[in-house]
Amino acid sequence: MLVSQLLNPTLREVPAEAEVISHQLMVRAGLIRKSASGLYTFLPLGLRVLRKIETIVREEMDAKGGQEVLMPIMQPAELWKESGRWDVYGAELFRLKDRHNREFCLGPTHEEIITDLVRGEIRSYKQLPMLLYQIQNKYRDERRPRFGLMRGREFIMKDLYSFDRDEAGLHESYQKMYDAYCRIFARCGLSFRPVEADAGAIGGTGGTHEFMVLADSGENSVVYCSGCDYAANTEKSECRPQAVEDESPQGQRKLVPTPGVKTIESLSEFLAVPKTALVKSLLYQGDDKIFLVLVRGDRTLNEIKLNNALGGFVSLQLASPELVKEILGCEPGSVGPVDTPAGLMVVADEEVPLMKRAVCGANQADHHYTDVVPSRDFRIDQVLDLRMVEPGEACLKCGAPLKEARGIEVGQVFKLGTKYSKALGANFLDENGVERSCVMGCYGVGVSRTMAAAIEQNNDEFGIIWPMPIAPYQVIIVPTSNKDALVVETADKLYQELQRLGVEVVLDDRDERAGVKFKDADLVGYPIRVTLGSKTLANGQVELKERKSGETHLINIEDLSHQVKEMVKKALKC
Amino acid sequence: MLVSQLLNPTLREVPAEAEVISHQLMVRAGLIRKSASGLYTFLPLGLRVLRKIETIVREEMDAKGGQEVLMPIMQPAELWKESGRWDVYGAELFRLKDRHNREFCLGPTHEEIITDLVRGEIRSYKQLPMLLYQIQNKYRDERRPRFGLMRGREFIMKDLYSFDRDEAGLHESYQKMYDAYCRIFARCGLSFRPVEADAGAIGGTGGTHEFMVLADSGENSVVYCSGCDYAANTEKSECRPQAVEDESPQGQRKLVPTPGVKTIESLSEFLAVPKTALVKSLLYQGDDKIFLVLVRGDRTLNEIKLNNALGGFVSLQLASPELVKEILGCEPGSVGPVDTPAGLMVVADEEVPLMKRAVCGANQADHHYTDVVPSRDFRIDQVLDLRMVEPGEACLKCGAPLKEARGIEVGQVFKLGTKYSKALGANFLDENGVERSCVMGCYGVGVSRTMAAAIEQNNDEFGIIWPMPIAPYQVIIVPTSNKDALVVETADKLYQELQRLGVEVVLDDRDERAGVKFKDADLVGYPIRVTLGSKTLANGQVELKERKSGETHLINIEDLSHQVKEMVKKALKC
Repeated sequence: MLVSQLLNPTLREVPAEAEVISHQLMVRAGLIRKSASGLYTFLPLGLRVLRKIETIVREEMDAKGGQEVLMPIMQPAELWKESGRWDVYGAELFRLKDRHNREFCLGPTHEEIITDLVRGEIRSYKQLPMLLYQIQNKYRDERRPRFGLMRGREFIMKDLYSFDRDEAGLHESYQKMYDAYCRIFARCGLSFRPVEADAGAIGGTGGTHEFMVLADSGENSVVYCSGCDYAANTEKSECRPQAVEDESPQGQRKLVPTPGVKTIESLSEFLAVPKTALVKSLLYQGDDKIFLVLVRGDRTLNEIKLNNALGGFVSLQLASPELVKEILGCEPGSVGPVDTPAGLMVVADEEVPLMKRAVCGANQADHHYTDVVPSRDFRIDQVLDLRMVEPGEACLKCGAPLKEARGIEVGQVFKLGTKYSKALGANFLDENGVERSCVMGCYGVGVSRTMAAAIEQNNDEFGIIWPMPIAPYQVIIVPTSNKDALVVETADKLYQELQRLGVEVVLDDRDERAGVKFKDADLVGYPIRVTLGSKTLANGQVELKERKSGETHLINIEDLSHQVKEMVKKALKC
Repeated sequence: MLVSQLLNPTLREVPAEAEVISHQLMVRAGLIRKSASGLYTFLPLGLRVLRKIETIVREEMDAKGGQEVLMPIMQPAELWKESGRWDVYGAELFRLKDRHNREFCLGPTHEEIITDLVRGEIRSYKQLPMLLYQIQNKYRDERRPRFGLMRGREFIMKDLYSFDRDEAGLHESYQKMYDAYCRIFARCGLSFRPVEADAGAIGGTGGTHEFMVLADSGENSVVYCSGCDYAANTEKSECRPQAVEDESPQGQRKLVPTPGVKTIESLSEFLAVPKTALVKSLLYQGDDKIFLVLVRGDRTLNEIKLNNALGGFVSLQLASPELVKEILGCEPGSVGPVDTPAGLMVVADEEVPLMKRAVCGANQADHHYTDVVPSRDFRIDQVLDLRMVEPGEACLKCGAPLKEARGIEVGQVFKLGTKYSKALGANFLDENGVERSCVMGCYGVGVSRTMAAAIEQNNDEFGIIWPMPIAPYQVIIVPTSNKDALVVETADKLYQELQRLGVEVVLDDRDERAGVKFKDADLVGYPIRVTLGSKTLANGQVELKERKSGETHLINIEDLSHQVKEMVKKALKC
């Protein structure tokens, strides 16, 4: 491809609305353009990257026996009512009506459609397992679309659904997909980590893993073990309770004045006790239930654990100040577990019962209790793992210290169980002629998101640094002059030669200064740049530059094509 | 691919709701399944056909310098308001609102989005011509979705948009696309015809051609010349007026009683005059204009010509009986051109003034005028070509007789001119630094529709007969026994061998009777079937059957793979 004929509008300025680096660079490098908030057009180079990721995903799905189908984006409301999701899915579901006033949605996911398909076609256990997938647009009416392709309203996903006879079959399909996902992100040339994750709102019986592309800018926090292969979403990671060395109090609890003190920080300072000696008391409302939650003062409550442990509320939030006043007669900053109403459930993180001499709120303004002993001085109805893990803690599996990293979620594998097959009646006859529900799994890769994540992970101050397997083109040839006939002719010859060798190459034939061409080449992020200058060429040499390392080498012109071909081949094998 | 592992649910019965053969066969052959009215899932074999058509389209677009992009399906209302189409597009546009109550539509076409993109990126004439295309879902809220993929609500199209400096450039781009389309449908192995067509509602300055796949079941009628390359949509085809040999009347027109006579047929019979002697008079309402339309009694009025000739009404229809009564004082069956109100415009087909002695309605019940002479007895305000062409008429270009055929529209090329570039301000600076509007063209291929049209054209009582280039697989191997070890092993060996040779092959390894496998193979329509039976195999032979011709040959086992490979190669070259 000749750059002069390519729609690749590069920009020097950072677009004002682009908050994250991948969004900035995708716009600046001319890969995408915005059509409306959260809706983008992929320009030719952006689309090439997308297609490469799609191809890798497709090959790995096929290798595991996945069969590709293509389901409608518009989905009838009836199916969503059958599964029970029409009413609970909320504002993120794009809904519309046809001319006959029938309701539809734009699919954010396809469990209903695929289960409807399969229930019509599956009869016997002999047809299972069945793995069906598609690569297609998905829709989500984000409250605030942002970060370019990272959180758009229209995005491209691969979604595979597995149908098995039983849990053992599901486990096998799950493992296949887990392995395939590892291969996908490795083949894309990305540094990633599968982490144990929370099942969240999709529901389902079993485990789930998220695949995180590691990047400092990632919005997810993950912990991983420095000693073994344990890794988890920080919100999911189980914690080992750690007791603090502390002496039991000599006498009864004391009510002490703490004028104006309302936070853990100020309390620790005011009383000159470490945060580990404080009990953080939080009144929560989950749907129509109210309960008091306790964690140690130095810890962070993990709301996801709290919600999972208490059975999964649709809405879980801190009680309003008015509600706190009504229940406990004080402000939120004064809440404590002593002498709470009999009907109020008190749940505590596992570390709270291990405290020997605690300080807590007294449910009255400007006072706290000291020398408080859990159980002796207050009731705990349920002890649970409710806190966020912290880097440096011991791995639950092997005891080695955990480390923390930031990541971008690009894939998730999920054991659904029989939630959808039961709701929609996707049954089969087993070996004994008994009708049973298919056991399902679902497995998603954010294809357009992977493109953004790849940039978040691979960039520098000059632009994108594409991993070879997903680069829009592998090589750019830059003649530094459009007037030196030898330069122009040699550039063209190399261009032809590399194409013949099957290398994906663009030739920057524009009538621009060399500096402009270099800047654009770096910005777009072609892995290899071949530069032809009058002087070096007079010596029979051209310059070869690796985008990633920045290293340059002078190469004899006759060796160039072969050497480039080898570099590409090597980089694709990694 | 092993058939046992393929989701390819075939049906023996014709699905009740499928009215056309392509819909019936696509469901029966397990290529698609309905998710909702006008919304389909492509199953694995159907998707393979689709992808093959897409690949052919993509290659031909790229060969003409087209650059592939991917635009959003969801389009903001603002852009459609800018182009003026938001209010006029009507009920076929799927509209929806986001959570912030902003309006969007699901794109039935992408002129607005692409023009918005280009206006942001184009500065200079040096960047033109620019040809941008995508292959993507389109949406149309059909009043009555039917015929499977022929008239769905969600369908796949390739749409290319050309941007040129001037009309000459547009003409060149148009010709490129015309040529590319000819190659596309030829490469798909289809019998087709490009025909001159009506510009219709898209608007635009220039010509347009439709590409018709010829099939007796086609919903479009086309005429083509037996002598030259002229071909046109029947509705578009210009007519040469033909005079009827007739004598002028001796005296004045006569009012004759015609009790109960209200149609051309009954009038011709009652008065014993040929239909060529009758004037058909029709009162029409175009938006808020009313006019009388005259064509010869043996001809059919062409409403599209009428509408184009009179300037393009949003709504054009026969006047209601009430309106006829109000304007002419009679029923619609008695309408005639004599003594009409002075303000009523009378438009006549070119053949009407050539009539010498005509019969027409008298604007009163149960009477007609005979011996009427146009101009002498009634006024004609405008003479126009207003009738439908008929097979057998002389070609306007060469005089040879026209023939008629039926076709399915699968593509259209269209000169848009500056309609959208002016509305949205897609301008560039020409050689003299003068700002000018891009001159645009748009070019669509119905990708999923082409799949349906291919089946309409290529089928028999046993099923689909795929042209080799778009067959889901090229070859099916059918072992007639799953018990004869030699049959099973040889089938597997051939399967491996053909795969190694790059032939797309499935092996029907199911534990089914040979008859069932044969029926399915014919139904799905694999171009080549290789059958392995115990008896023939004992003689070292297998049977090779061509789906299209139905011819079978016994081939020595050692020649089979090579011969199949050659057959495939030959069929792909056609």
